[in-house]
Parts: sequence; C-alpha cells; structure tokens
Amino acid sequence: MRNIKLTLAYDGINFYGYELQPGKRTIRGEIEKALQKIIKQKISIVSSSRTDAGVHALYNVINFKSDQKIPIDRIPAALNSILPDDIRVLDAEEKGNSFNSRFDPKSKEYEYIIYYGDVLPPVLRGLVWHVKPKMDLSAMKKAAKYLVGKHNFSSFCASGGDDDDFVRTIYTLDVGLRTLDVWRGAKFKVLSLKVIGDGYLYKMVRNIVGTLVGVGLGKLEEKDVSQILKAKDRKLAGRTAPAKGLCLVKVSF
Amino acid sequence: MRNIKLTLAYDGINFYGYELQPGKRTIRGEIEKALQKIIKQKISIVSSSRTDAGVHALYNVINFKSDQKIPIDRIPAALNSILPDDIRVLDAEEKGNSFNSRFDPKSKEYEYIIYYGDVLPPVLRGLVWHVKPKMDLSAMKKAAKYLVGKHNFSSFCASGGDDDDFVRTIYTLDVGLRTLDVWRGAKFKVLSLKVIGDGYLYKMVRNIVGTLVGVGLGKLEEKDVSQILKAKDRKLAGRTAPAKGLCLVKVSF
Repeated sequence: MRNIKLTLAYDGINFYGYELQPGKRTIRGEIEKALQKIIKQKISIVSSSRTDAGVHALYNVINFKSDQKIPIDRIPAALNSILPDDIRVLDAEEKGNSFNSRFDPKSKEYEYIIYYGDVLPPVLRGLVWHVKPKMDLSAMKKAAKYLVGKHNFSSFCASGGDDDDFVRTIYTLDVGLRTLDVWRGAKFKVLSLKVIGDGYLYKMVRNIVGTLVGVGLGKLEEKDVSQILKAKDRKLAGRTAPAKGLCLVKVSF
Repeated sequence: MRNIKLTLAYDGINFYGYELQPGKRTIRGEIEKALQKIIKQKISIVSSSRTDAGVHALYNVINFKSDQKIPIDRIPAALNSILPDDIRVLDAEEKGNSFNSRFDPKSKEYEYIIYYGDVLPPVLRGLVWHVKPKMDLSAMKKAAKYLVGKHNFSSFCASGGDDDDFVRTIYTLDVGLRTLDVWRGAKFKVLSLKVIGDGYLYKMVRNIVGTLVGVGLGKLEEKDVSQILKAKDRKLAGRTAPAKGLCLVKVSF
C-alpha cells in the first residue's frame, strides 16, 4: 500500500467545512469524490486540520492509502481537472507507511484578518472580519501574551467538538498591522493575528480572536483574559469571530 | 438642483456589468434602486466607466442630480446600509452644476492581472486570468509600445458597442511582474498590465491584453501588433481576455 500525502488550498466560503456532512458540500467530500474518480477505489482521507465552514486554507495536508499505481507527479493535475476551482491540490508526495497527517504535525499556523477601515472593500468581503470601531492594539498585544504557552484552553473551546483533552500549547500569538496588496493602488491596511500552536480545540482560534477583539474594544480588560483562561469556562470568553477571517496558512511536521 | 458625485468600489463577479439590463443584476441598477430608497425620487446616474460583466472597480465615479437635502456626508453610510456587500460607496461630494462623470475624466487607469503559476490559488480565481504556458515578457513589453499614443483603435474594439469615433489616446501601457499579498506567506507572483488612457472602446483593454498575451505565447510577433493597429480590423487582433482579470483602479479629472 502506498501512503500518499496531498497539500491542499481552498477558499472556504462556499463549503460547509472540511468534515463530511450528509448532503453538504465539504472539502473532504470533494477530495474523496475526485480521488474515487481517478483511483477507481473508495478512498478515506485523513487531514491535518478539519477546518470549519467558511474557514480558508492556504495549505492543509491530507493523506490516504491506496495500492493504485498512478505516478505521483500526475496526481495533482489529475485531481485539479476534476475538482471545482475553489479547491486545488498543490502537491502530492509518497510518504512512509507510518505518516499520518492528523497526528504528525508539530505545529499549525493560522492567520486571522480583521479589516478596521470605515467601508469594507468588496474584494475583501469573504476574507476578513470587518470591525469598525477603533481598537486598542496595545491592549490586544498585552492580552495575547497571557495565552502563549501550555494551558488548558477549555474556556476557548466551543461546545459540539469531540475533544477530551483540553491542554494545548500556543507557541506564538502575534497581533499586528499589515497591508494586503490586491489591485494596483489597493493597499488595504488590516489587523492580522498570527497563531502558531501544536493543536487547537473546536473553534479555539476564533474564540481567542473574539476575546482579543473584546479587549481591543474595551469590553474586556487585558487581565480578564488571564482570568478567563484560569476559569476553564467557555461562557466567560468573548464572542466567536466569524469563520471567513480565518485561514490555515501552514502545517509543519 | 444639487449635483452629487459618488465614488464606488465593486467586485464585478456577480454583476452583469455596470449598464442597466432588464431583469439582470447590474451596478447601475443596484445604485439607482438604493438611491431611490433614501432620496424618495427616481434617480438616473451617469458613470465614468460602464464596466462589462465580471469587471471589477476599485474606484469608479458616478453623479446624479437631485433637489433632496440629505447631508452629503450621510450619503455613503445610508447607501451602504442598503446596498449588497459586493458594491460599496466610498465617498460622496457635491459638485458644480456642470460636473459630468462620463465626459469630464482626463484619464482612466485599469489594471489587468494574469496569474501564470501552475496551479491557480482558489482565493485568486475571481480576480485573475490564469495563463499557464510560459510567456515572453520582453516581447510583450516591446509589443505594448506600439499601442501607446493617439491611434484609431478599431482593431481592438469589439462589435456591439456604441462607439462612432475610434480614436483614443493611451498614455501608459506597462507590462510587468508584481506580487499580490493576501494571507501571510501567500505572496502570489503575477503579471500585471497597467493601462492609462483618455478613454476606451468596447472591450478595448481586454482585446489589448488578449493580443499582448498572444505575443507572449509566440502566436503573434511583436511587430504584428503594429500591423493589427494599422489594419483597423478587429478580426486580426488576439482573443478577448476574460473580464474577471480586469479592474478599473482610478479615474482622474
């Protein structure tokens, strides 16, 4: 059996997330359907991140096992010729038998983008969360520091997930301004949150972002974030930030 | 009567272009419908550019006359609260009686973006033309020079327009590489064509782009572009580049 790793990119806006759901358009559903067409076998894939509905991926990793002999370098083009254009296979690689894209990642990096200008540019409407009132960036940066490290993140885990161990490590949580460059003359200033961690609970990144925005808007104080973390109670954290601002940008093995 | 100028931005992908069409979703239709709601009068707007179906605008200008007394600085937010999120009013300004957004522009600038990597990133699928084979950038640059200046552009005018004077002046036609910056780590290299002219015939920019891509792919020679221009015959020019790669980025008065 060959163990094949695929790297995927997708625009999440028209998907009901990664995981299979009966009758819904999902990342996993589209990939498994396309694989079945080219490999002539029913394939079950495993992923580094089961992104939620509306969440994007610049780089997600899946793997599957098959005894099919199709040359590895032909797989991306073969799949892309079948897949809809909001999901693409960037790369295919043959791995050792033990490789598992779900359990092997050392870290996963997400970016969350917030547009804070007065009028949301139409081209960004599926990629960012628009937060109009002025935010206190310095308070957000300070609050973010409480979350870095190995913690029980229960307070930031939405109900409905299948997690039973709530301890995760956040290596990096940076809040800063940057510029998106789309069309000539369209340099859009945004607030970018970069999170690198060893893994995430259900909706954890979006709950962290929502909480930090609460701090930025003065609804929460910086040190409240430390209290919320310690309390292990989801009801205390801020709102869940919308899915469309979130993108899985890197998986490191 | 007040003469009111509005600056608009839109993502053209879900519109049948700027101009009114019965039963179709158009830029003009959406703006006139929203104006009628806030101004309580049937309004007819005039635009700097009647962009085609699928063409985007970072900056288009319209104006209309009305005796309504609504404060000028309230107009953008009032319209944006009614308009769909793929079209936004960036600014409103009261102008003198003679201001006309169609006839007054001194120049209009478009950008056309071509993605030439092997796999089209899903996030760019509505914003660029994907041309996979390697193009000769140097030949495209040389060919572009023939088109700069005051010429009869009949060969680059699609049928179906309402033009009767085919002379236009192109001030700038630059072909070059640049980088789009969307998500962190997603710096997409693209071929960008920047066109500044005093006006354009029907589908003229897209016909120029299609012709220059023909040169880049070796289907046409550089000097063919000079011959095509002189022949004043649309049948000689290259294909019309797809609408989605084109964006009106600036109107100068």
